[in-house]
Amino acid sequence: MTARPARRVALVLEYDGSRYLGSQLQARGPTIQGELERAIARLTGERTRVVFAGRTDAGVHALGQVAAFTTASRLPTGVFVRGLNAHLPADIAVRRAVEAPEDFDPRRHAVSRTYRYTIYNAPVRSPLLRHRAWHIAAPLDVDRMRRAATYLPGRRDFAAFSRREPTSTVRCLQRCEVERHGLIVTIEVEANAFLRQQMRRTAGALAQVGLGRLSPTAFRAILRQAAPNSAGPLAPAHGLCLLRVAYKGLDLNEPTRYDEALS
Amino acid sequence: MTARPARRVALVLEYDGSRYLGSQLQARGPTIQGELERAIARLTGERTRVVFAGRTDAGVHALGQVAAFTTASRLPTGVFVRGLNAHLPADIAVRRAVEAPEDFDPRRHAVSRTYRYTIYNAPVRSPLLRHRAWHIAAPLDVDRMRRAATYLPGRRDFAAFSRREPTSTVRCLQRCEVERHGLIVTIEVEANAFLRQQMRRTAGALAQVGLGRLSPTAFRAILRQAAPNSAGPLAPAHGLCLLRVAYKGLDLNEPTRYDEALS
Repeated sequence: MTARPARRVALVLEYDGSRYLGSQLQARGPTIQGELERAIARLTGERTRVVFAGRTDAGVHALGQVAAFTTASRLPTGVFVRGLNAHLPADIAVRRAVEAPEDFDPRRHAVSRTYRYTIYNAPVRSPLLRHRAWHIAAPLDVDRMRRAATYLPGRRDFAAFSRREPTSTVRCLQRCEVERHGLIVTIEVEANAFLRQQMRRTAGALAQVGLGRLSPTAFRAILRQAAPNSAGPLAPAHGLCLLRVAYKGLDLNEPTRYDEALS
Repeated sequence: MTARPARRVALVLEYDGSRYLGSQLQARGPTIQGELERAIARLTGERTRVVFAGRTDAGVHALGQVAAFTTASRLPTGVFVRGLNAHLPADIAVRRAVEAPEDFDPRRHAVSRTYRYTIYNAPVRSPLLRHRAWHIAAPLDVDRMRRAATYLPGRRDFAAFSRREPTSTVRCLQRCEVERHGLIVTIEVEANAFLRQQMRRTAGALAQVGLGRLSPTAFRAILRQAAPNSAGPLAPAHGLCLLRVAYKGLDLNEPTRYDEALS
């Protein structure tokens, strides 16, 4: 008998992060990783370690988080989707399972991540959006936010939108779009990778611009200054959602208008 | 001193019905009415009875439920909004408070109610929409649902979409619109009034049509037959939302695109 080659399976995950301590395993409470590894163990009988494309903080949601694990199981990918969903709690679901190269690392091999930050901009808080959007009562000037957002794309040092980091804070940001749909203001950012809390600090600073407390040029000055933590307040976790992760040569997007449907 | 005239205040409410037994007061658990009467008592020191425009079942949401109460308080309406929101739990909010005629009855004086039923039509369940939409995995044929929906408007006996009722089951239905936005299918119905469970039974029957299990003409036959409960399955409560209630001479709509923003 020849040794069976190691099989690597990539999963696309949606989750409501409200009751989790974040994506990464922790001893002191429930995590996305913990739930997923438990579901895999129940389905396959194997103890595995799952790797995620991006770390999400406590309370942060995902529509397209990517995870991968190695398995000896020969279950078809469709059975992985249905079987894992039967074992996962209602606030986590596997949207897709695909065969991946044996050395596939969803974190190191990602070419870009897209996050969406959602603000509910209305005089009164919204019960129906309370776990999905940051409530800002004063009106936001979206045109002003857009002007500030034009300074973000490019290969830059994003230290101003991070905590003090031991490694390089240079990242390549492809796109930052600010949109208003009625009372909802969204900030969508695509980058090769994100610093810790970068998206929440970016949303926090852009909100200051929208409220008139920071000018677009002052926003640019903070960005150029590149001093850790200088961009001010951190937007709350519950407004943030990891929309998708892109890979070269591995298409994880579904042929549906899923993301639009949920936006 | 002259007696102070009775003051009637109308409220527009948004709520997430997930953890309530419904809108109407019950001894065995939390209700929207119970929470609202408690918040009014805390704000004004008065024990009042609140009347709602429409009864919503356990798990049903509202963006524009209307409630009214009589008070001796002289607080401005803006203070009612902020004060009640400070006392209400996070899953209930007052969106507006307006002065109403002394005899205003939000139930009897309503000229129409609009409900929206939301279906999430995708192969895999959605964690982020699990409390907001009915998950149907098989594809729905929305054109077929629309053909069936054309039989609904008019003054008709809607007994087929009700439980056995002691009173008349004739209602005047102005509008039924079925729309698809990506993976979301919505059914919006406006009528002068609704029978108990009418909207959930209508959504259940239209889903059967969309799945190909019932033809649009069979749907019409069931409607014409007017036998209680003949329309089949009841769609689950968590997909239903009371969008708005209309009155003659009392404008409760806000000058915003609020409903669109949340849809």
